[in-house]
Amino acid sequence: MARKAVAIENYPGFEEISGLELIQRFEKHLRKFTRQSFSKKNLGGQVDIERDEVVKLKKIKKGFLVFTESKHRFEAKAVIIASGADPRPLEVPGEKKFIGRGLSYCSVCDGPLFENKNVAVIGGGNAGFEAAIFLSNIAKKIYILEFNPKIGADETNQERVKKTGKVEVITNAALKQIKGNQLPERGEAERRVEMKANSERGKLHRFVNSIIYQDRKTKKNIILPLEGVFVEIGSQPATAFVKGLVNFNEKDEIKIDLRTNQTKIPGLFAAGDITEIKDKQIVIAAGEGAKAALSAYDYLQK
Amino acid sequence: MARKAVAIENYPGFEEISGLELIQRFEKHLRKFTRQSFSKKNLGGQVDIERDEVVKLKKIKKGFLVFTESKHRFEAKAVIIASGADPRPLEVPGEKKFIGRGLSYCSVCDGPLFENKNVAVIGGGNAGFEAAIFLSNIAKKIYILEFNPKIGADETNQERVKKTGKVEVITNAALKQIKGNQLPERGEAERRVEMKANSERGKLHRFVNSIIYQDRKTKKNIILPLEGVFVEIGSQPATAFVKGLVNFNEKDEIKIDLRTNQTKIPGLFAAGDITEIKDKQIVIAAGEGAKAALSAYDYLQK
Repeated sequence: MARKAVAIENYPGFEEISGLELIQRFEKHLRKFTRQSFSKKNLGGQVDIERDEVVKLKKIKKGFLVFTESKHRFEAKAVIIASGADPRPLEVPGEKKFIGRGLSYCSVCDGPLFENKNVAVIGGGNAGFEAAIFLSNIAKKIYILEFNPKIGADETNQERVKKTGKVEVITNAALKQIKGNQLPERGEAERRVEMKANSERGKLHRFVNSIIYQDRKTKKNIILPLEGVFVEIGSQPATAFVKGLVNFNEKDEIKIDLRTNQTKIPGLFAAGDITEIKDKQIVIAAGEGAKAALSAYDYLQK
Repeated sequence: MARKAVAIENYPGFEEISGLELIQRFEKHLRKFTRQSFSKKNLGGQVDIERDEVVKLKKIKKGFLVFTESKHRFEAKAVIIASGADPRPLEVPGEKKFIGRGLSYCSVCDGPLFENKNVAVIGGGNAGFEAAIFLSNIAKKIYILEFNPKIGADETNQERVKKTGKVEVITNAALKQIKGNQLPERGEAERRVEMKANSERGKLHRFVNSIIYQDRKTKKNIILPLEGVFVEIGSQPATAFVKGLVNFNEKDEIKIDLRTNQTKIPGLFAAGDITEIKDKQIVIAAGEGAKAALSAYDYLQK
């Protein structure tokens, strides 16, 4: 997530920082302390960072075996899984082109950029409805597009959406394309987004101006002019490599002891967006990482 | 805590930052976003920061009444308690003088500064024993001083302490004084501590060199030469103003739903060191604060 984010504004201490820079700062911070105290003494030697993809995690008698894509094998007494989750993509033309240019996977993060604009939320589950409720405080009008004939969000959320008086729910809607062009005007919101997009990709001006969806009943294609698209069709926790080893909730997130971050397997911990914690934000995940590290330390001592 | 800390080295992103500067950065960050988006629109107006002490929190029908020391009264639909906890002080001569000069309330934070030194842990409960176990990886020799005739730490921790071969447990020990003088030599560890102490208080060189305790059986005063003192006699969560309103654990910490940070009272949330969470670290508390804020938002929407 942090890698993709155009600019991070919700990690306390940095008003605005790129995902890449924050990651680099974390890494430098880690290396400073492992160099300084722990490498000299018997605290387990230095910390090695391996850039590789884990394909399999296996429980063995003495702990765990970690297998990676580049055929390396690591043995460990304890493991912390922090492989995160990606939002499920729309997989329609225009999606990649407009990320950070009107298309967002995080309404809480990017919503405030769409003051008084027309936006769409893709996905009629609870996440989509809650995004719409949040956006109703900011945007002018919100469309919720749901692929199925029926809404998945619960009654309470449907009631709350109705109360806003700003949301139009469209069922049987198959999203076909995200369209955009040059910015028509340079208001404050656009300038900020444009600036960020610019710093990220070195391009200017391109911005969402509409979406096309097919009404699945009439088979007609319909164009909705709007300036923002929020994707709320679930996330994909990167958990394939621990299937069968730990417990998952209905969203495919790893179940943990919320106090210690331990999974059902002693010595196997998980932290951040890959777990069942309620809110996915960077500072929350950072805190969860610290909790898991301290719990793993406790585990190794015993 | 952060206010007192000489230097914070465990908030990811900042290798070393003073507590005051980190607080100022958080405040500036908050003000930026409340100014920018939320003050203009119907998101509840601006955020006001009041510097005052809460003396009483009362549940009323419409929410809560907050009473402060300077006789102000605030009405709120939801409240997040984040008043933190201070380590319980020793209250012996020399304590205040040597904070950050050999005397520490956080073994995980400051332990690495005492490589190959003799140190004492004050307090023979689980916290004291766990501090000693952690320090045994770094220090040369560790004394644990316990006021009572019997150790409070559980069997497992006593076993683990024994195994280190570095810890001497002294019961019936009433700490009388922390003593110190000029630094005898300027090794790496000392220079770092000295530097920090210097930046904090503008003084140089003073450092712990011994403690005096009374053997409560023989009534004799005994001097222990050492370079570090770690205080582990519990903490004082600042919870007086919610007594009777929420549930507490045996350490006087507020019990919460670990997923939402809500106390047993709907609309009343708590976050950070004042709660029953296992580990007290800044980044964990920051994450907990974000969790509580998002849960309070959910609560207000319903």
